[in-house]
Amino acid sequence: MTVYLVGAGPGDPELITLKGVNVLKRANVIIYDNLANEEILKHGANAKKIYVGKKARKHYKKQEEINEILIKEGKNNENVVRLKGGDPFVFGRGGEEILALIENNISFEVVPGITSAVGIPTSLGLPVSHRAVATSFTIITGHEDPKKKHKQVKWDYRADTLIILMGVGNIKENTKKIMEYRSEDTPVCVIENGTLPNEKIIFGTLSDIGGKKIDTPAILVVGEVVDVYKKIKESRIKSSLMLLL
Amino acid sequence: MTVYLVGAGPGDPELITLKGVNVLKRANVIIYDNLANEEILKHGANAKKIYVGKKARKHYKKQEEINEILIKEGKNNENVVRLKGGDPFVFGRGGEEILALIENNISFEVVPGITSAVGIPTSLGLPVSHRAVATSFTIITGHEDPKKKHKQVKWDYRADTLIILMGVGNIKENTKKIMEYRSEDTPVCVIENGTLPNEKIIFGTLSDIGGKKIDTPAILVVGEVVDVYKKIKESRIKSSLMLLL
Repeated sequence: MTVYLVGAGPGDPELITLKGVNVLKRANVIIYDNLANEEILKHGANAKKIYVGKKARKHYKKQEEINEILIKEGKNNENVVRLKGGDPFVFGRGGEEILALIENNISFEVVPGITSAVGIPTSLGLPVSHRAVATSFTIITGHEDPKKKHKQVKWDYRADTLIILMGVGNIKENTKKIMEYRSEDTPVCVIENGTLPNEKIIFGTLSDIGGKKIDTPAILVVGEVVDVYKKIKESRIKSSLMLLL
Repeated sequence: MTVYLVGAGPGDPELITLKGVNVLKRANVIIYDNLANEEILKHGANAKKIYVGKKARKHYKKQEEINEILIKEGKNNENVVRLKGGDPFVFGRGGEEILALIENNISFEVVPGITSAVGIPTSLGLPVSHRAVATSFTIITGHEDPKKKHKQVKWDYRADTLIILMGVGNIKENTKKIMEYRSEDTPVCVIENGTLPNEKIIFGTLSDIGGKKIDTPAILVVGEVVDVYKKIKESRIKSSLMLLL
């Protein structure tokens, strides 16, 4: 009678936590979204699997419907896992889900995961914070609820680095808004399918990135740390060549 | 001849990744800082351990000295792990370390960890982002290099939630600066020893938190999500009582 909200991490199936794996192993039911990599489900080999991601929801299954499934399964099973990509509370609507569980007297636990916003840049060797370059970073959702009357995302964030999740669909619009506050030459970098074998990195600036072909899922990193990363990447290639000579 | 920068996560030894554990198991040498929990070192049972944290550095061993150790061990061993609390690039000076490795033609890989900034609130049930409340959050270091002439941390960040790491030593000063941009009634929450058995939560506002007794390590969360968490926490207690009746 416990629902565990578990973060699956950014994609690489080795980037889930030990705790996440242990909870999956004990699960009777696993309720999951679109995961970057479904291999993680193998840890819950004996559990019933319920997919509630976009493909299953022709007209975007409402969050309320997912909550109902969580409540129903939570009432009828010892260990239910609600598995989410990244971290359950980084734009994952985990807060709404636990509020629904509480209202129905279902106990819950939350197991954090590595958010794509940090884990994807880090695994590349792109430091989201860097001495004398970035002492702060802001993580933003690039896809705000279109039904919201007053948009909360204002884009005038002052942090040194910006990391935008789910923002590829609106990339032209978003970068235009960011350019009201940052130079159009600001270096940016898009990472498609981060931490997975088909990972791809696209460099640009705030003014030209919107014109490039980008596939989802992808994250956008904005700021001088992208130049630090370019230096790291180039030196790393040179260094590898040196070792071969 | 590879140095692996590995994030150990926020404290709970189960919150390291599978990849981190696999790398530790193969390590010949582990170079580590002050970790929230040293139990993680057990995964590298056969490795030589080198402690380079604060206690070992009477006058704060310079980063250059740590870099030299990394280079020396990297040149002489197959698998060296540089183990850091949280994520290696979230105020962990990982960027400087990999630049030093590259200059010395030592190959490296980075294994992300769960940053305390997200993992600690999430594991409590405190959503750092929440629909209609927070669509962005900024992570800041509260302890800037005192030698820096121009302070980069300006505190006028516009994100809905602020999460400050390493800021307890300067909490009065920091909250005073934040109050130049946010109401003094803004709810805040300090989490000491997050994800560990001696975890402690202290609630307050921007204006009164500086007067409370706080031990390190601790993180500070600022914004309306703290009120969402209070609601979750209170309902959870009521809900548990209901189950007992």
